[in-house]
Amino acid sequence: MSLDSLHLPGPEVPGRRQRRREETAQRILSSAVRLFEKNGYTPTTVEQITEAADVAKGTFFNYFPSKEHLLLNVFALVRLEFERLEKEAPTATDVRAHLRGFARNFLASPSRTNIVRNVIGLAVTEPLIGEAFQTTLLKARAAVSRVFERGQKLGQVRTDISALLLARTFQQFILGTEIVYSVSGGNDLQQWLDTMFEIFWSGAAPAKTGARSASVGKPKRSTKKKVKH
Amino acid sequence: MSLDSLHLPGPEVPGRRQRRREETAQRILSSAVRLFEKNGYTPTTVEQITEAADVAKGTFFNYFPSKEHLLLNVFALVRLEFERLEKEAPTATDVRAHLRGFARNFLASPSRTNIVRNVIGLAVTEPLIGEAFQTTLLKARAAVSRVFERGQKLGQVRTDISALLLARTFQQFILGTEIVYSVSGGNDLQQWLDTMFEIFWSGAAPAKTGARSASVGKPKRSTKKKVKH
Repeated sequence: MSLDSLHLPGPEVPGRRQRRREETAQRILSSAVRLFEKNGYTPTTVEQITEAADVAKGTFFNYFPSKEHLLLNVFALVRLEFERLEKEAPTATDVRAHLRGFARNFLASPSRTNIVRNVIGLAVTEPLIGEAFQTTLLKARAAVSRVFERGQKLGQVRTDISALLLARTFQQFILGTEIVYSVSGGNDLQQWLDTMFEIFWSGAAPAKTGARSASVGKPKRSTKKKVKH
Repeated sequence: MSLDSLHLPGPEVPGRRQRRREETAQRILSSAVRLFEKNGYTPTTVEQITEAADVAKGTFFNYFPSKEHLLLNVFALVRLEFERLEKEAPTATDVRAHLRGFARNFLASPSRTNIVRNVIGLAVTEPLIGEAFQTTLLKARAAVSRVFERGQKLGQVRTDISALLLARTFQQFILGTEIVYSVSGGNDLQQWLDTMFEIFWSGAAPAKTGARSASVGKPKRSTKKKVKH
């Protein structure tokens, strides 16, 4: 994952010094993300982050004016993941599997919901974070929309609802799943997502082929197996 | 709406005094809900609530130990709405219309999202509110589950996913819609809900009849009209 889009303060320095700078920023970010995942954003302190990253506390502030700014950089990294999704969209052959795979990776660690949970809480109370959240939602929506466009082109997705609206609804479903899941204290997020995906895709499939048989490369009704957990 | 399930402190007093007590509690609650809707839960002060309810500030604490407890009573009122939904479920004839009507009333005022937005933020940070939120989610899920059971009985809802799991997923979709809608600052929640409903119900319809034609009393494909906003 590149740090190109991160907003590191300070003058541009070439070569080794710049590389080292990026390595340090990356180390701070990774340590922070691990701590956010483990303990949540709010309780994590800058001291804990710098200790985990093995840098002096003052060093942190050479890279990020505050913990909040660090979170903004986490958002930037998330947007990079969606940029990749957007680039891959035009060559997808099975959009359901493609998006399911992306979501599986994106929410791979159960602890990642710890961040999402925190961020949603903060997004509705902290304007700066709310803004970054909204920017990221829009970026993600645009990327997912490309996948649905591809699906419409391939006849795998209904065309009576625009790709952008399908993408927004998909986003609502993902975030709602995250919320209810976090409050419920479950430990089977992938199963929750499977159920959510099954209902969403049945609803997003083209009507004429029968909602449950729109997946490419799968036998008809293959997704109709009992879902119970 | 009855206050029977509210947890008012103090000894039981019969007759007129008890009636007056309930009236005052109801007035405080209504004023609080209106203020929460208008300005959000967090910025609203007890002073503003008592002023709007036209009672002395001290009176508030005869009824509710804190603003947080008042919010817990709002949750109790919400659970009463779901109790009604649960009671009506066995006689519903068109479950899609029934649930859509309930959601339309439940989220009738656009400002009600102000409360939901606040409550979700608080539910992930304040344990007491998180607990009440989870209790209410479970109650709502049980009620909605009865509606889906009815729908399964009538052949309007797919039976390969349990009614309870459908209800949980429905809940995820509603809450996710609320979140993305609040962050987006839209003013057309009912349209957002319409789109969400359309995709959800297409996905929840029985496969054999074709996903878009399961609504009772409507011509086939009637729900396939262009959804764009």
